[in-house]
Amino acid sequence: MTAAPALIALDWGTTSLRAYLMGAGGAVLQSAEHPLGILKVEGGDFAGAFRAVAGAWRAASPGLPALASGMIGSRQGWREAPYAECPAGLDAVARGLVEIPGENLVLAPGVSFIDADGVPDVMRGEEAQIFGAFADGGSGIAVLPGTHSKWAEVEGGRIRRFATFMTGEAFAALSGHTILGRLFEGEAFDAGGFARGVAHAALKQKGRGGLLHRMFSARTLGLFNKAPPQALRSYLSGLLIGWEIEEAAAWLRRKPLEVTVIGGAQLSAAYRAAFKQRGVAAEAAPADAAALGLWRIAAAAGLV
Amino acid sequence: MTAAPALIALDWGTTSLRAYLMGAGGAVLQSAEHPLGILKVEGGDFAGAFRAVAGAWRAASPGLPALASGMIGSRQGWREAPYAECPAGLDAVARGLVEIPGENLVLAPGVSFIDADGVPDVMRGEEAQIFGAFADGGSGIAVLPGTHSKWAEVEGGRIRRFATFMTGEAFAALSGHTILGRLFEGEAFDAGGFARGVAHAALKQKGRGGLLHRMFSARTLGLFNKAPPQALRSYLSGLLIGWEIEEAAAWLRRKPLEVTVIGGAQLSAAYRAAFKQRGVAAEAAPADAAALGLWRIAAAAGLV
Repeated sequence: MTAAPALIALDWGTTSLRAYLMGAGGAVLQSAEHPLGILKVEGGDFAGAFRAVAGAWRAASPGLPALASGMIGSRQGWREAPYAECPAGLDAVARGLVEIPGENLVLAPGVSFIDADGVPDVMRGEEAQIFGAFADGGSGIAVLPGTHSKWAEVEGGRIRRFATFMTGEAFAALSGHTILGRLFEGEAFDAGGFARGVAHAALKQKGRGGLLHRMFSARTLGLFNKAPPQALRSYLSGLLIGWEIEEAAAWLRRKPLEVTVIGGAQLSAAYRAAFKQRGVAAEAAPADAAALGLWRIAAAAGLV
Repeated sequence: MTAAPALIALDWGTTSLRAYLMGAGGAVLQSAEHPLGILKVEGGDFAGAFRAVAGAWRAASPGLPALASGMIGSRQGWREAPYAECPAGLDAVARGLVEIPGENLVLAPGVSFIDADGVPDVMRGEEAQIFGAFADGGSGIAVLPGTHSKWAEVEGGRIRRFATFMTGEAFAALSGHTILGRLFEGEAFDAGGFARGVAHAALKQKGRGGLLHRMFSARTLGLFNKAPPQALRSYLSGLLIGWEIEEAAAWLRRKPLEVTVIGGAQLSAAYRAAFKQRGVAAEAAPADAAALGLWRIAAAAGLV
């Protein structure tokens, strides 16, 4: 016998929307991915997109509550849900839910952190993944690789502070729109090139080369035939991912011994390789961390 | 009475070509800029481009020798002039001249530096500018701002070592091809935003934020209305130029007290503002440093 549906949970980001039908205890009964990220919804018709995604589930279970996290709650989304400030736990995020009138749908706020220099940082959607990965209310370091990687210090299930690293987007911009990409051959992952990039990033610790300087080596190693052209793209990727790890260690004020990696399989594999090389134990979060986190927010808000 | 022409000197780069007709002692008699950088010469007809630029001078002074520096001597140029390795002075560069048969034209080699980690760095054309700016055979730190900024330690007129920083190209890629540019309004220089970027870069010294993290602030300061949208572009520019200065100080293993800035007026103004803010005395090199450097190379090679 299948558990009865209790919640529609949406991880609604910039480029895609992942929808979950959830039952008691946070079990995922059904899930689907839709190309309906907020930048892809025509004319900003979020109500139409929501019905297309959740309509059948709603029809089968009238009155089912729905909760969405991610960029849908941003200024560019359906309705703005102001950020909950760090340290932020389930309670703070649950208090910040914003209702979409007439839809039986609430949007989760993102989380912000203002650093010692007064500079803000933001996440939207990652907080749900973190709450899912740390469902036991434990502590640790969460790493969410991506276009804008996030590192978060989690303490007793709450997000104490976090930092964004523009690793993925910087890689795309540098390989696609600078001279560096000119010598690249192919897009296949090259393990040797990647490892070398990670190793070169580690020289940062010794004060040998900042990033604006070091990135130029993705060209000169090719020019001097010190690396084969099909290794250069992975070299730059390893350099940037390795650099992120070094920057994050400085941000944490210690070398991390263990991290929890949350995110897509392919990208996480590269990060896991980099962590292994740097002697950091990387544990993979469950694939449906976002769904479980959304369930926990809904429970904290009394929706389920 | 005008001095007799003695040399045709060409600063022949990727996007443009600056040509000088020079007389005794290195005086510039005439000069012209042509949109004939090596990537813009149709069909790679460098001989045709050379005649278009120098033909009239040659006709008026038959037998006049010609010397070109820059990317024209690269693998993508007319003929490759292999790099002279650091430490490199006039003598080393003069020894590496490569002849273009039948044209009475020689190409200057670029200069390379292999760092302690075995990673090469390269320059082509900047060495002539440095030899021009340090025509007295003195010592100091040369800074050549640009798409690929170069910092060189000059000792007794020789280039002891140098480093490339991809500041200009990283700025273009990040503002034009990442989310950062989305909040930018206008392209006018904003002195306040620029200064704030330089100040934030200086936090690097205190271990507060690496570049992959810090660049995200060009978005979040806008999101939180902590900076006006028309200041954000200059903020990112100041952050990157400031970052280059911090990286270079680490590379030099000391904070520079004085530098010689060689390069275009507009860009140099931004660098001079950043240097002033960071307490570094920045002296401007003469505008025709490249011509003088080419003259000195020609003299060392016995061409004039």
